[in-house]
Amino acid sequence: MERINLKEKYSLFSDFWSPKIIGELKGQYVKLAKFKGEFIWHAHEFEDELFMVIKGTLRLEFRDRTMIVNENELIIVPKGVEHRPGADEEVWVMLFEPQETLNTGNTQSAYTKENLEWI
Amino acid sequence: MERINLKEKYSLFSDFWSPKIIGELKGQYVKLAKFKGEFIWHAHEFEDELFMVIKGTLRLEFRDRTMIVNENELIIVPKGVEHRPGADEEVWVMLFEPQETLNTGNTQSAYTKENLEWI
Repeated sequence: MERINLKEKYSLFSDFWSPKIIGELKGQYVKLAKFKGEFIWHAHEFEDELFMVIKGTLRLEFRDRTMIVNENELIIVPKGVEHRPGADEEVWVMLFEPQETLNTGNTQSAYTKENLEWI
Repeated sequence: MERINLKEKYSLFSDFWSPKIIGELKGQYVKLAKFKGEFIWHAHEFEDELFMVIKGTLRLEFRDRTMIVNENELIIVPKGVEHRPGADEEVWVMLFEPQETLNTGNTQSAYTKENLEWI
């Protein structure tokens, strides 16, 4: 059992759009990621996905609207809902999602990351 | 789909040891709670439990040690591990855990809360 300090963990990586695993509980992973720029449109067929903003501002585009998620705010994107994350400035995001969740969901792309690293 | 601001949600309640549900994803709840004083010893037979400290300092006693969890830190208590949360000063905690998790786990007590409120 480990006490996890988020800022320490964020200091361990600098690559964008590449979630790292920091914890596991009953089939779910807790991941940290840094985003900057614009990701791709995708959806997760079976997995709900929680985004919590630890630092900065996250933009989440949906087909019918855009939502801004600030520090100390979170949003749960239900399975099947197309979304595109983005950030004008670097944003630190904590993700909570089933272990089988692929970062690009149903869309294979250069951004797709498999076999995520534990930090 | 709702953007959830943690501070706004914490402003909606003041009772200690009474988690409120703020979100659900695939069989898991996200809950907010305020702790102060000392809880009871308990374990969750089947459920891993994540405690993230949003404000203040959380003390987690285990049978073999005590851990201090500060703001922006989290800890995952695996199923079956006996623990007793406590806090000298009010602490704001976010919990991730399976929907069926009872706050007092395997121990029925005056602290036991069922049918938790959504806020």
